[in-house]
Amino acid sequence: MSPMFVPGPVDVAEDVLQAQARPILPHRSPEFETIFHRAEQKARKLFYTQYRVFITASSGTGLQEAAVRNLAKEKVLACVNGAFGKRWAEVAETNGKKVTRLEAEWGQPITPEAVAEALKQDHYEIITVVHNETSVGLENPIKDIAAVVHEVSPDTLICVDAVSSLGGAKLEMDAWGLDMVLTSSQKCLALPPGLALGAVSDRAMERAKDVPNRGWYFDFIRLEKHRLKDSTPATPAVSLVYALDYQLDRILKEGLENRFARHEAMAKRVRSWALDRGFKLLAAEGYRSKTVTSIVNEHGLDVNEINEFLLKRDMRIANGYGALKGKTFRIAHMGELQMSDIDTLLAALDEFLQQKGVL
Amino acid sequence: MSPMFVPGPVDVAEDVLQAQARPILPHRSPEFETIFHRAEQKARKLFYTQYRVFITASSGTGLQEAAVRNLAKEKVLACVNGAFGKRWAEVAETNGKKVTRLEAEWGQPITPEAVAEALKQDHYEIITVVHNETSVGLENPIKDIAAVVHEVSPDTLICVDAVSSLGGAKLEMDAWGLDMVLTSSQKCLALPPGLALGAVSDRAMERAKDVPNRGWYFDFIRLEKHRLKDSTPATPAVSLVYALDYQLDRILKEGLENRFARHEAMAKRVRSWALDRGFKLLAAEGYRSKTVTSIVNEHGLDVNEINEFLLKRDMRIANGYGALKGKTFRIAHMGELQMSDIDTLLAALDEFLQQKGVL
Repeated sequence: MSPMFVPGPVDVAEDVLQAQARPILPHRSPEFETIFHRAEQKARKLFYTQYRVFITASSGTGLQEAAVRNLAKEKVLACVNGAFGKRWAEVAETNGKKVTRLEAEWGQPITPEAVAEALKQDHYEIITVVHNETSVGLENPIKDIAAVVHEVSPDTLICVDAVSSLGGAKLEMDAWGLDMVLTSSQKCLALPPGLALGAVSDRAMERAKDVPNRGWYFDFIRLEKHRLKDSTPATPAVSLVYALDYQLDRILKEGLENRFARHEAMAKRVRSWALDRGFKLLAAEGYRSKTVTSIVNEHGLDVNEINEFLLKRDMRIANGYGALKGKTFRIAHMGELQMSDIDTLLAALDEFLQQKGVL
Repeated sequence: MSPMFVPGPVDVAEDVLQAQARPILPHRSPEFETIFHRAEQKARKLFYTQYRVFITASSGTGLQEAAVRNLAKEKVLACVNGAFGKRWAEVAETNGKKVTRLEAEWGQPITPEAVAEALKQDHYEIITVVHNETSVGLENPIKDIAAVVHEVSPDTLICVDAVSSLGGAKLEMDAWGLDMVLTSSQKCLALPPGLALGAVSDRAMERAKDVPNRGWYFDFIRLEKHRLKDSTPATPAVSLVYALDYQLDRILKEGLENRFARHEAMAKRVRSWALDRGFKLLAAEGYRSKTVTSIVNEHGLDVNEINEFLLKRDMRIANGYGALKGKTFRIAHMGELQMSDIDTLLAALDEFLQQKGVL
């Protein structure tokens, strides 16, 4: 395996890749329903929830769309401090919702104070916020944000995008009182892309019943009706569900707390490496992501040239996202990566910096 | 491989299963873009189109939703003579469209005459029709239906669900003047489920520009913008795209005409077996599916018992769909199946009938 330090799709372990290659079962067979059932049960542990987890054949963005279509008739407060918070606002707007953006500078967190202020000014059916902003390497303080939502506007449903954090950084859905948490397969879960997982609270399910125009493909009520029979309304991605079922065993065997600790230790190593080399970090201190670090390109390096250098060693990192391309570069430390992989990468980057006369 | 005679998910060849298991590439890498590009180019041949093919991480139903959201502001004429035509009408309604159903008895085709009549009575932005109704084993006469739509209401866009026929029975999108044709991976293409393919004409793309509230995940305009860069707006199902790319080579190597002939020959064999044994066929003569045969359970057999019998021989057939359960059973002859598989199945079924005293 040639390690990729990109924030998804990440490397997938060989035995997990092989789990996809088992013969395809009919999705309405008892054999497949057994697999689907146990995968859903295990997935709940990742979310720290006792509620249901919908497993959809889609990317995580599909479930961003599901959240706004199922839970808001009209008014959405969208927290935006990176590309995926911005995307969620656009998803809501393109689905006909009235969106108010609560923005913070990219690299700065969405603060509980700003959320409280916004909720005092108007009433919203849902608030959307990204746990781990992959684009800027920042973790928003979801627990504290949720606490102020409960205090200031208790009937506002809290929807969290945990695409690049779930399974890599702790997020406790039930204890924090979150109503919907979504993730996708190809980030910290270290699975092939093509599956999304969405955990939904009972009160969110109740709300969905009153929302018209929910559509069909991502309709929570329809998904729930079939989930109760260990199935899905449309054909599920059978081979990816095999891989999910298998990988959840691997993840739970490692232990979630151990997994979070591994991610955080790699994050700390990368951050201190960058700071020691005279780089700055894009995300503010105290809010730095545990799964991906965004490094400000202080030394004016050519990121494509870095990757050409790394690819010769079978490694790659990620450029900055969108408008941040060239201005930042990103090192992901998620999924199956180990500290030894990080050490190998950082040694190679040091070699590159020496060649460029930076070190 | 233990052959399954169910109308999807079907058996997938071992080397196609293995194609999924290659290491995951980042979707925005040149290496993956090359694969995505050539898969899309090859997919056009299946549709007999020079237009674009969108490859989405979803089931075929996701693209039923895409059709109605992208191409109709309001009025949809939905042809219903089976479960999937019915589903498409429901998909349109749950997405807020005003739907008129053109119904035919299950087992009878949607006729061009009935379509002409409906189009004379009112104006519709789109007509939805299923090519091959998996639920009843019937092929609707799409070419003739399209001809009357062009004559009576030329600006009505023609949307065709070819989920259980594309790659198994001929459908010529451009020559017949169809505007959108959708399919999914797990039927005649003999791939794992989780991918859908939708071919869209230029005039449908023009229409989409004027339709509000198209959403994000299945928005044709957004999909096209990214397709032109050999990519997708959200993360694609990388491992399933590997399998698609690989399997399209296999399919084109067999030759589409050969593939259609193989499916039709298997269909004829199954039909005459059933008629010879005193069964009736659900679909009217002249409209019988080339990919799945629905057999009326004249002898009052227990379909579950048939499958228990067959499973001991590593085979299985499908029960009737929904309300037809027990009243019909279905033998699929699609994907990788060969005449020798059909012969093995029919010999086993004869043995079962002998045990039951029917033969």
